[in-house]
Amino acid sequence: MPVPAPGLPEHVTIYEVGARDGLQNESAIVPVEVKAEFLHRLAAAGLRVLEATSFVHPKWVPQLADAGDLLRLLVRTDGVDYPVLVPNERGMDRALDAGVSHVAVFASATDTFAQRNLNSTLDSQFAMFEPVVKRALEGGLRVRGYVSMCFGDPWEGAVAPEQVAAVTRRLAEMGCHQISLGDTIGTGTPGHVDAVLDACVAAGVAVRQLAVHFHDTYGQALANTLAALRRGVRTVDASAGGLGGCPYAESATGNLATEDLVWMLDGLGIGHGVDLDALVATSVWMAERLGRPSPSRVVRALAGD
Amino acid sequence: MPVPAPGLPEHVTIYEVGARDGLQNESAIVPVEVKAEFLHRLAAAGLRVLEATSFVHPKWVPQLADAGDLLRLLVRTDGVDYPVLVPNERGMDRALDAGVSHVAVFASATDTFAQRNLNSTLDSQFAMFEPVVKRALEGGLRVRGYVSMCFGDPWEGAVAPEQVAAVTRRLAEMGCHQISLGDTIGTGTPGHVDAVLDACVAAGVAVRQLAVHFHDTYGQALANTLAALRRGVRTVDASAGGLGGCPYAESATGNLATEDLVWMLDGLGIGHGVDLDALVATSVWMAERLGRPSPSRVVRALAGD
Repeated sequence: MPVPAPGLPEHVTIYEVGARDGLQNESAIVPVEVKAEFLHRLAAAGLRVLEATSFVHPKWVPQLADAGDLLRLLVRTDGVDYPVLVPNERGMDRALDAGVSHVAVFASATDTFAQRNLNSTLDSQFAMFEPVVKRALEGGLRVRGYVSMCFGDPWEGAVAPEQVAAVTRRLAEMGCHQISLGDTIGTGTPGHVDAVLDACVAAGVAVRQLAVHFHDTYGQALANTLAALRRGVRTVDASAGGLGGCPYAESATGNLATEDLVWMLDGLGIGHGVDLDALVATSVWMAERLGRPSPSRVVRALAGD
Repeated sequence: MPVPAPGLPEHVTIYEVGARDGLQNESAIVPVEVKAEFLHRLAAAGLRVLEATSFVHPKWVPQLADAGDLLRLLVRTDGVDYPVLVPNERGMDRALDAGVSHVAVFASATDTFAQRNLNSTLDSQFAMFEPVVKRALEGGLRVRGYVSMCFGDPWEGAVAPEQVAAVTRRLAEMGCHQISLGDTIGTGTPGHVDAVLDACVAAGVAVRQLAVHFHDTYGQALANTLAALRRGVRTVDASAGGLGGCPYAESATGNLATEDLVWMLDGLGIGHGVDLDALVATSVWMAERLGRPSPSRVVRALAGD
């Protein structure tokens, strides 16, 4: 077993987003019983943070319209955290009804995406989730903040690291215990990761408070993760089996596959607590439910015909 | 335009293997005129080292049985180097007849692969290509050495970095101007890359003499490349469009896609001389000839429907 090189951690927390960010971006509508079993299997495979679903309005994300039902069906494993995404006060009502203890809110690093996704602006978006965060904290819940488009935006192109850092700092000041920096369009590269992380730290956010959320659209997700680990990041978002990405030509916008991440962490001697074989079996099982192969290279290598 | 971070180079040489290692591993037999046009397009896209073909016996690699014809058809571009693979003395005869000025020989880092691929052993394999290298050097040719299975072997599992270093050193002593360290089965991870490179340097091989050759079977190729660049490697093997790998489930054993590498180098501010749009167009064109999409994520992102 290798020992982590200087500058690399002994342990990384994998923040598993397959059930939310993954399934939200799959065209298939997965039955709620399958989602519950998916989460049970992920917990059994050793994952300790499972983003379970989103209380976004069903009109926008029909794939996750069953959020309340899923949380009722879910048998929680001790020691596993099940955050849910909450976009606004109505979503917060539903999340509180469901008895969650950890929520996530979603911010944009760019003005255009704030307008398109949140019908807001870079500055005024905070007004939307500030009351959500306040209620959550008052209720003793933990709150994660997402920042999307941190490494580029399809309309504005490049995004200044300082702009990302300003949004990140504001989420930290609001009381988010962790802020996940998302490369929503997957164009970022390792030097860019360094620049964004450095800007956040220069703005006063502790690097241990940061997570990274890479999409593999341009094949950069794992190299970017390596750069982030070297910079002190200790939480990495990933999606079991690369859920959310299509393995065929027309798009490949999936999240970093948890299995590909686990393979690299194993090789680097970095602990993560996940049983790779059980995870691969889970992703193969889910790929069968979705009727198409997993885009994860490790899943295909280990479970290939 | 970003500036390379400390420890990263201003320029990297891409050693393009698509026409040889890529097409050798495709099931389709590509017409020789298509191969020639492929090489012409790659040169026009700015690639400066194009491994053109292999003079291996056609019985073993029918895909490259047209090596002599291809070199006759090929219109060489000034400033572009066209190495060819030469496995033995008979192959060397054919390469010299074709008027090549740069050849590559192939060694194994493991005993089992030396037996299976070369019908030899770890120690006795050198007897096979020592005369080849000698003749090449006497004829004023340049010789590249490949070492395969540097990061693991399907039969022996782990491979000691010192064993890789010993083979590498022997190729350097024989007169190879460059030695390419191959992760033939794609299982290596970044810390492993550091260990193998360190062992080679400790054995007396200059890091600038080394190239890296990663396969993306487990999704690690680009992260491994980043590690190698940080360790001082300045030549990276890659295959246009990820040729040699199948984008479907049953296998994904392709080389690192040149486009995915170029995307990362661009983001890091590292020069390479390649016109990405022209390269993507070439890979799309070749994918049409092969009748299936490119496995390169950048090709799929930039040329997706």
